[in-house]
Amino acid sequence: MNINPTLETLFNHVSVREYIDRPVNNETLDLILKAACSGSTMGNMQLFSIIVTRDAEMKAKLAPLHFNQPMATSAPVILTFCADFRRFNQYCRFRNANTEAYSNLQAYQWAVTDALIAAQNACVAAESLGLGFVWLGTITYNVDQFVEILQLPDHVIPVACIPMGYPVQKPALTQKLPVETFVHQEVYHDYNEQRINECYREKESSEETKGILAENPDCDNLAQVFTKHRYTQPDNEHFAGVLAETLVRQGFIRR
Amino acid sequence: MNINPTLETLFNHVSVREYIDRPVNNETLDLILKAACSGSTMGNMQLFSIIVTRDAEMKAKLAPLHFNQPMATSAPVILTFCADFRRFNQYCRFRNANTEAYSNLQAYQWAVTDALIAAQNACVAAESLGLGFVWLGTITYNVDQFVEILQLPDHVIPVACIPMGYPVQKPALTQKLPVETFVHQEVYHDYNEQRINECYREKESSEETKGILAENPDCDNLAQVFTKHRYTQPDNEHFAGVLAETLVRQGFIRR
Repeated sequence: MNINPTLETLFNHVSVREYIDRPVNNETLDLILKAACSGSTMGNMQLFSIIVTRDAEMKAKLAPLHFNQPMATSAPVILTFCADFRRFNQYCRFRNANTEAYSNLQAYQWAVTDALIAAQNACVAAESLGLGFVWLGTITYNVDQFVEILQLPDHVIPVACIPMGYPVQKPALTQKLPVETFVHQEVYHDYNEQRINECYREKESSEETKGILAENPDCDNLAQVFTKHRYTQPDNEHFAGVLAETLVRQGFIRR
Repeated sequence: MNINPTLETLFNHVSVREYIDRPVNNETLDLILKAACSGSTMGNMQLFSIIVTRDAEMKAKLAPLHFNQPMATSAPVILTFCADFRRFNQYCRFRNANTEAYSNLQAYQWAVTDALIAAQNACVAAESLGLGFVWLGTITYNVDQFVEILQLPDHVIPVACIPMGYPVQKPALTQKLPVETFVHQEVYHDYNEQRINECYREKESSEETKGILAENPDCDNLAQVFTKHRYTQPDNEHFAGVLAETLVRQGFIRR
């Protein structure tokens, strides 16, 4: 089977966290943005927006919300993808159509989908052009403050934040679980202890995992590193509350 | 600027709704699934699952939930991407880690993101291999019934459903709004009436739009076609309710 260049790009994806001091020129950025805008969208409504951050002052303002991860300031460009029903609602408003149809969770789900398709297209395009990037999960944390700083109106919520630049070096491929782990024929086949052991065997015995456990002596295994330190219940519940509040404030959930 | 093969694939995306009678062989499907599993994921938790539908009986069972759109039965393969925290929770369970940390909306948002990155990667891979596909928005409608038929356990919710096959013909590119419509420098720049008119000018004056309006004589413009017929407030609010109920039932929102 021939592995074409697109598959090669996809298979060789790695997150890049360090960028050389080289700007992303407008021509390159335009190709990335065009790719972002070329994907499927719900009913061709195109329910997303892209905020381009290049200004150092804006990066500095946003950095604390990304817990000061260096990528949030060192990358020449940051793309923030937003679920956006505002533009379509404005279109309805100025065409004398119902502007209340999309103030609900269904509309939010559609706009999230459109925004994430656009984001992933941008990523694939960027990688094909020799750029590196990393998704900052922190965009899902203090959503309310991102809304504030990026001046997002009602019906706009950020869902992906992706710093991009030319890599200092291309890191080794991330260790992933085997593909079979994720694939279910016809119906879902649940994971019992034996299957979990099989799926995680290679990952748990890797040098990377051993290194992580050495740094976390209070944890017996990788699962505990996640639940005790990385993504804890109190943190997740707090930020889930912020997200729910923001969905109300931005008009996707009615009180 | 050189348009590489990956950008060509991305720029030339079209939704394909009619498939020739040719199966997708396992080798090809494996490449698509591998691409799906190669994308970024939250903290490398890989919070998604893929249900592969090839069985005619399963397609027939699911078809009414897709309002009997022909693609739901005529495509040789249908891939349903699910936001999935079940597998990770099971991993936590069998490693004596907290299994309650991811029963919240924050966890759902992460898993949705992972599932949609995987879905879009699968789409790009499929298109690079000469296949065609279309996203079925209907997956976001009767979510509860998809959960039932696909036998999805708690913490698993379907978010994308993509029939794939070899196209009868490659349709013309879909008309999209200009790229500038979606791009905001540094902060969001809101859409007033003039800007909406500019963004929609080309689309509203197209033959396609004229055709749609001829079929909907009760509508003055495209916006009204959407709010009166395609995606109406009562429908959207109904299905938003189903989604919210399903989030509770699947354990992502506590009552």
